[in-house]
Amino acid sequence: MKNIEKQIFNIGLIGLGNIGTKVAEELLQNDKFNQIFNLKTVLVRDLEKYYNLALKNKKFNVGNRKIAFDLVDVPEKIIEDENIDVVIELIGGVGPASEYVKKSLIAGKHVITANKELISKQIDELLHLSNKYNSKIKFEASVGAGIPIIELVLELSRQNQIRNIRGIINGTSNYILSKMSEDGSNFEDVLKEAQNLGFAESDPTNDVDGFDAKFKIAILGALAFKSEIPLESIYVDGIRGITNKDFEYAKELDLNIKLLAFAEKEGSTIFAKVHPILIPINDPMAKVDRNYNVIEIEGDLIGKLWIQGEGAGNNSTTSAVLGDLMSLFDSRQSDMLFLNQNLKIRTIDQDINKYYLRLVVVDQPGVLAQIAEIFSKNKISIASVIQKDLYPDNQFVDLVIMTHSSIEKNIQDVVKSISLLKVVQQDPLLIRVQN
Amino acid sequence: MKNIEKQIFNIGLIGLGNIGTKVAEELLQNDKFNQIFNLKTVLVRDLEKYYNLALKNKKFNVGNRKIAFDLVDVPEKIIEDENIDVVIELIGGVGPASEYVKKSLIAGKHVITANKELISKQIDELLHLSNKYNSKIKFEASVGAGIPIIELVLELSRQNQIRNIRGIINGTSNYILSKMSEDGSNFEDVLKEAQNLGFAESDPTNDVDGFDAKFKIAILGALAFKSEIPLESIYVDGIRGITNKDFEYAKELDLNIKLLAFAEKEGSTIFAKVHPILIPINDPMAKVDRNYNVIEIEGDLIGKLWIQGEGAGNNSTTSAVLGDLMSLFDSRQSDMLFLNQNLKIRTIDQDINKYYLRLVVVDQPGVLAQIAEIFSKNKISIASVIQKDLYPDNQFVDLVIMTHSSIEKNIQDVVKSISLLKVVQQDPLLIRVQN
Repeated sequence: MKNIEKQIFNIGLIGLGNIGTKVAEELLQNDKFNQIFNLKTVLVRDLEKYYNLALKNKKFNVGNRKIAFDLVDVPEKIIEDENIDVVIELIGGVGPASEYVKKSLIAGKHVITANKELISKQIDELLHLSNKYNSKIKFEASVGAGIPIIELVLELSRQNQIRNIRGIINGTSNYILSKMSEDGSNFEDVLKEAQNLGFAESDPTNDVDGFDAKFKIAILGALAFKSEIPLESIYVDGIRGITNKDFEYAKELDLNIKLLAFAEKEGSTIFAKVHPILIPINDPMAKVDRNYNVIEIEGDLIGKLWIQGEGAGNNSTTSAVLGDLMSLFDSRQSDMLFLNQNLKIRTIDQDINKYYLRLVVVDQPGVLAQIAEIFSKNKISIASVIQKDLYPDNQFVDLVIMTHSSIEKNIQDVVKSISLLKVVQQDPLLIRVQN
Repeated sequence: MKNIEKQIFNIGLIGLGNIGTKVAEELLQNDKFNQIFNLKTVLVRDLEKYYNLALKNKKFNVGNRKIAFDLVDVPEKIIEDENIDVVIELIGGVGPASEYVKKSLIAGKHVITANKELISKQIDELLHLSNKYNSKIKFEASVGAGIPIIELVLELSRQNQIRNIRGIINGTSNYILSKMSEDGSNFEDVLKEAQNLGFAESDPTNDVDGFDAKFKIAILGALAFKSEIPLESIYVDGIRGITNKDFEYAKELDLNIKLLAFAEKEGSTIFAKVHPILIPINDPMAKVDRNYNVIEIEGDLIGKLWIQGEGAGNNSTTSAVLGDLMSLFDSRQSDMLFLNQNLKIRTIDQDINKYYLRLVVVDQPGVLAQIAEIFSKNKISIASVIQKDLYPDNQFVDLVIMTHSSIEKNIQDVVKSISLLKVVQQDPLLIRVQN
């Protein structure tokens, strides 16, 4: 049981792969975390191999300790350690992760996991254990990495009847489909490229055959509708059969191909599926490319809500794990919010932008030269000028001037000087241009 | 002070306008809420006027009471009522809302407000009061209505260094700019149309001159960077000067015009501004149209995260207010999560989709007739057929068949039958088409 008087959380970490290593580094090196968390013990399978790796990682070296935590290969040293408050499970798969997670919950420890397979298969059992033993289980990293989609679904489902969820929730297959659509390349070539870039695993089955998306939509659906969705009830079709020809035909029909996951509720019936789908190229979801994930949630009050971000990667997944950790810590702290940073504030004067300036000027020789000189004096370089003759009697013209990047103060001085020119007919209109 | 043993929250509502009415209706009529919340007292300015309105609203009639709550015009009847746990403030503006909110916090009551002006001007003071008197203040509805952007910024800022926020956070001006861009209409006409449709107020200053967006970005920036941003430090430029000519010129340059709000942190300096900006038409933000809001948040771990939805409207704002209420309730309940709905699960058989079916067939007479007959037997109507002759020796052709909507079971039967035809060379590829 947690001691709510304690100032620090002791943490046991299970797994020291890419994400485990990044989580450990943040816990040890980032002042935001190492003040309130103590990474006590790390469990690995091969003690010798990881001991040598850990020795080489300078970020594991805190104070005069070569490795700041206890590196162990016996799970009991975490699960049975009464001083450990939170267990972070990052080994994936059902066994032995399931055993470690359950035993930790029963021992009253909070658990954080990124394990979508485990959660999708045992969510109901794990929530019951967590409620029974007054321990919490958090799994934000299991869907969409650092995109806080689990929290969003839980939050919205409190006050909305969620009707349906659809989304691109497998970054690897989205990367492959995007590249096929862009380049006209074929599936095998893009898969190889994705594997070389680290976007796809050497065995891509989980991603390209839709199983990863199935795990994730089972979790989202269960949380949205508060009802377990057995994996075997979820229809799954992957992207292996799709060829560059299909993208050609789709383009002729103004369509693009995406792998989408769906979960819907109608009355007291729910339904979930994962399959490739042809969507109009003007649907915003058709344009979510590369390894991006997107989830659209529709609720009775909220309408359609859309959240999008990098749904994979060590940093993004680490963000979710640390977010879960902070939320456990905050809920113990009654979550007080202070604005205690007292930062300096910059004004717009030093802002650097490109600018669009529209003027109405008298149509006579020398006007542009006069205006150009004002820009030059204020050290702003003109990128282009459009002159439009739209006025009766050709008395006036519109001048649209696009500048290169310049300091805000200088363009404000330009506008002031130009406004004073007799040949200028109205207040100039200034719009900033995105860099 | 709250009594944590109590099973029910007593609620005092200040303001019975559009959103107040919708909130009251949900609290009284929705079983999700009326089991745990009791709408005890509602404060209005004009007792006689609102009493008659309330009498007419059948949704305010619960049991044999004509109006289920006490309707009062004296604020003390809420602020000094020891039985009221939560005050919901929906009158807007600084005075007298500020006084009601502060007195409620000091009395130990939780406060929920949608008041962006109040929060942006007094956030630091209100948070201090809330922390001092152990009462909570929640204001999700103050930015982006039901889009839970406040919660998202708070969540991400726990484990990320947020670098910048940019977004379209005023639905009225975005509606006006979108219409001007689409139709080439001029500002005054679109403003009038927006006013008629209820998207713009009769005095549109707050929206079109950027003040509303200024309030909102001040709140988001303060929460992201944990430092107050005085409103007078925020540069603001509105959209009044923009004409249909500017949209023409922007289009020639492949640009679109949007009113964006920005908040950035660099080192220990922060900066916020609101102004129209020209952005490339291929930037996804250039395509967020109508009354939609979008916010992009960039953090060190998370990368760029994007959330989008309806940022205004009674339902959406009510969703945020009720979400705050549920979150106060859950935090008292230690926020246990159960999957207790036990819903039925539908399989894909009854799904209705359009379909894309690609076949490789022998190029000989009668093949299409054979295939079309299979569709017809299974009651699926063909929308179009593309035939592509891409093979050497013209031995085979690709047939791409698009169907009208049909039941999944029928198309599966079609695929099975077609696979058995001798003239079909490979397994057919089936992709569903978005309705």
